[in-house]
Amino acid sequence: MIDREHVSALEKILGEKGVVSDPAAMVAYQTGARYDEGVAALVLRPASTEEVSAVVAYCVKNGIALIPQSGNTGLVSGSTPDGSGTQVVLSLDRMVQRFDLDLDNRSLALDAGFRLSDVNQRLEQHGLFFPIDLGADPRIGGMLSTNTGGSRFLKYGDVRRNTLGVKVVLADEAGTVLDLNCDLRKNNTGVDWKQVFIGTAGAFGVITECVLNLEALPKQVATAYLVPASGAHVMPLLRAMEQRLGAYLSAFEGMSRNAVAAALDHVPSLRNPFQGGVIPDYVILCEISRTWEPREGEQSLDAVLEAVLAEIWESDDAPLADAFVGPAHEMWALRHALSEGVKHSGKLIAFDLSFRRGDIMAFCDRMKADMPSVFPEVTICDFGHIGDGGVHFNLVVPKDSSAATDRDFETRLRDWVFTIAVGDFTGSFSAEHAIGRKNQSYYDLYTDSKIKELAAGLKALTSPGSLGTVRFG
Amino acid sequence: MIDREHVSALEKILGEKGVVSDPAAMVAYQTGARYDEGVAALVLRPASTEEVSAVVAYCVKNGIALIPQSGNTGLVSGSTPDGSGTQVVLSLDRMVQRFDLDLDNRSLALDAGFRLSDVNQRLEQHGLFFPIDLGADPRIGGMLSTNTGGSRFLKYGDVRRNTLGVKVVLADEAGTVLDLNCDLRKNNTGVDWKQVFIGTAGAFGVITECVLNLEALPKQVATAYLVPASGAHVMPLLRAMEQRLGAYLSAFEGMSRNAVAAALDHVPSLRNPFQGGVIPDYVILCEISRTWEPREGEQSLDAVLEAVLAEIWESDDAPLADAFVGPAHEMWALRHALSEGVKHSGKLIAFDLSFRRGDIMAFCDRMKADMPSVFPEVTICDFGHIGDGGVHFNLVVPKDSSAATDRDFETRLRDWVFTIAVGDFTGSFSAEHAIGRKNQSYYDLYTDSKIKELAAGLKALTSPGSLGTVRFG
Repeated sequence: MIDREHVSALEKILGEKGVVSDPAAMVAYQTGARYDEGVAALVLRPASTEEVSAVVAYCVKNGIALIPQSGNTGLVSGSTPDGSGTQVVLSLDRMVQRFDLDLDNRSLALDAGFRLSDVNQRLEQHGLFFPIDLGADPRIGGMLSTNTGGSRFLKYGDVRRNTLGVKVVLADEAGTVLDLNCDLRKNNTGVDWKQVFIGTAGAFGVITECVLNLEALPKQVATAYLVPASGAHVMPLLRAMEQRLGAYLSAFEGMSRNAVAAALDHVPSLRNPFQGGVIPDYVILCEISRTWEPREGEQSLDAVLEAVLAEIWESDDAPLADAFVGPAHEMWALRHALSEGVKHSGKLIAFDLSFRRGDIMAFCDRMKADMPSVFPEVTICDFGHIGDGGVHFNLVVPKDSSAATDRDFETRLRDWVFTIAVGDFTGSFSAEHAIGRKNQSYYDLYTDSKIKELAAGLKALTSPGSLGTVRFG
Repeated sequence: MIDREHVSALEKILGEKGVVSDPAAMVAYQTGARYDEGVAALVLRPASTEEVSAVVAYCVKNGIALIPQSGNTGLVSGSTPDGSGTQVVLSLDRMVQRFDLDLDNRSLALDAGFRLSDVNQRLEQHGLFFPIDLGADPRIGGMLSTNTGGSRFLKYGDVRRNTLGVKVVLADEAGTVLDLNCDLRKNNTGVDWKQVFIGTAGAFGVITECVLNLEALPKQVATAYLVPASGAHVMPLLRAMEQRLGAYLSAFEGMSRNAVAAALDHVPSLRNPFQGGVIPDYVILCEISRTWEPREGEQSLDAVLEAVLAEIWESDDAPLADAFVGPAHEMWALRHALSEGVKHSGKLIAFDLSFRRGDIMAFCDRMKADMPSVFPEVTICDFGHIGDGGVHFNLVVPKDSSAATDRDFETRLRDWVFTIAVGDFTGSFSAEHAIGRKNQSYYDLYTDSKIKELAAGLKALTSPGSLGTVRFG
């Protein structure tokens, strides 16, 4: 609940359009994409950096907790209020005015409220795109505060790499606006402050505008499914592909048999592409791409990929059990259906892990070996971005089992997986979903106390007010 | 000068090999690559992170100022002591033990004291390299603390982009060691603290070890000189090349006539490659590269480049006055000789600027128009990394002119150039050389007071001791 006097004051700043207090209208802002249901005290919808600054200043002065929210598509409860009913949602969904495309600079300065799909649709006519490829359709501000990765990380990197500058509102009594690095690609004149606000869930400031790097849109794509002779051959195969294809290689995604089977079972539009319908233990979806149509005398990309696969097949570098080039949309359709398929096959308990690339298969093998004796109810349906070390380690328990409803079970399972992934393999417990209420306890557990001390100091320095769902200090 | 008791204590920590107090032996550590001559109180040469931690703790406790020094090849007086004789140099030149190559992860964990050339020589047999291409041969730690860019930034990015993790010693009384992000490519579990230490000249901590991203070595390269029909056509040309070549494009370097003429005049091994020996107003060196040898049925890269140039020539996109493909080593030899040539043609006053890419030629035109009336003694010999907005804006005055010896002249000239570059064009006064004593006053002038306040707070938080040549707060 929030005092009527505060609501009036905030309405004065934002106008009626900018403040939502009707409980029914607030539902969308307090409910997360996959998990999560909280209660908002109020929803603020500023339409400019100046308005964000004004309401942040007001809330800080009056001790009102703010939860910045962008597309609200995250999976770690990073953008929704808790159940207390005291937190105010600061939505960026009306921050969609500025869209300044600089073709010479190959960059885009824009308000943080645009959806990724909207950005890329507007850019298409210019042969450009913002090269972060995701299943969800977040708003740009949230992409920056989670530093999303996605399926083409291997070629284009994450959001951090593709951000030239940000404009940020600090949660201090002035609602200070920082304009950081604007639109230069190269600028080494001190601390690169924008980095503090990327991937930190809005705890240190609200990103209201930013400048993004754009890339030339691919005009040719070729894809293949590769079946390594064994799990031990996945890394040699990746190395062989990287050496032979360099910057052509735009995706190298791993899919386990269980994940593929779940997708084929539950998504009827998919075709089983494997010989005799037999799904291999582990399949790689490999994509190469380039930004131009084949010129006269130039091989098609399919031919390039065929030639590289033939080379690898003939060499001893990376024994293949099978490999075939196929239509990109069909091959990606299966990859994109894994998440959906797994969700339908039982109760999903999802992990967003990352490892040194060479440890991924060893970790999965360890899990396959140990899981049956420790958690016999669990089926492992992993898939992931092998090229950058990311694993969507998805576990499924039957919907009608006691494990599916027992909250303790999920906690025990999570603790056990993280003990091995983070403890034994020194992996990450959040590769690309960042931190929110949902994984705060693992941040607390696995973060060095000195780092927490520094984060607390940084928080006091930048945004002493209550901002976001995460406590980094 | 430093108390004998401190010298003994430090010798106890590092052994005799680790402490240099002989004035003659200290000269190399107190003299910069191009400018600079200071006086060191002492030189410390620790050989491990633990030793760095121990001596840093000792010096902080005893109020001794430390200047971290790596290859000492920088151009802004960032790694040499001032003239007071009170500052102790902390050299990383014995930090050359750890060299852990992880082929699966395509990464290298190493001590910060290795030279760039040494790293790349060791990597060559694996078909890999650290893709920062520079004229100088710095040590890795210094590359991180300046965040160097170089000639292939357009394709591979800067040091920041290619750093997975760092180990840092903080200048506090404990000599705290932070191990940041180790070797994961994807990890979003809080503030990415390593970013604070990259590009900040060692002020917030001493980088002692790091993990670098490696790239596959190019196996084919093609280069061309492109002469745009006018300066206004440089950007359309870059855009046309980027759209047609995507990730093939590995360099797009601009060279002004004056810079080329200086190189041809003063470096006798060079051949004048232009028709009739007539140097154009502005020439682009364009490079494309790929990581494999031509396969059967595949065009050579020279043929690809020829085809693209023919396309551009026939289109209206970017009128060319001339363009020709030529041998890479010869074309690069001229580019690499520009700096040397310009230095020989008079007294050099060098600027390391950057702009939005579309502003580069406008800035150069403005300079060419205004310089003769304001500073008639000055010849403009600019060249730069057009692809990323960087300009080595080099100015030359005759060696025998009064301007060459008048220090006030240089200050007036610098102030005037920066007023236009930073003030009017919102460019950067340090694109890739970072900050040191030499450009401290411009940091002070052009940095927002709130940013200075934040930097002072960050300094107090991380390294309260006296570290480095720069005052960011």
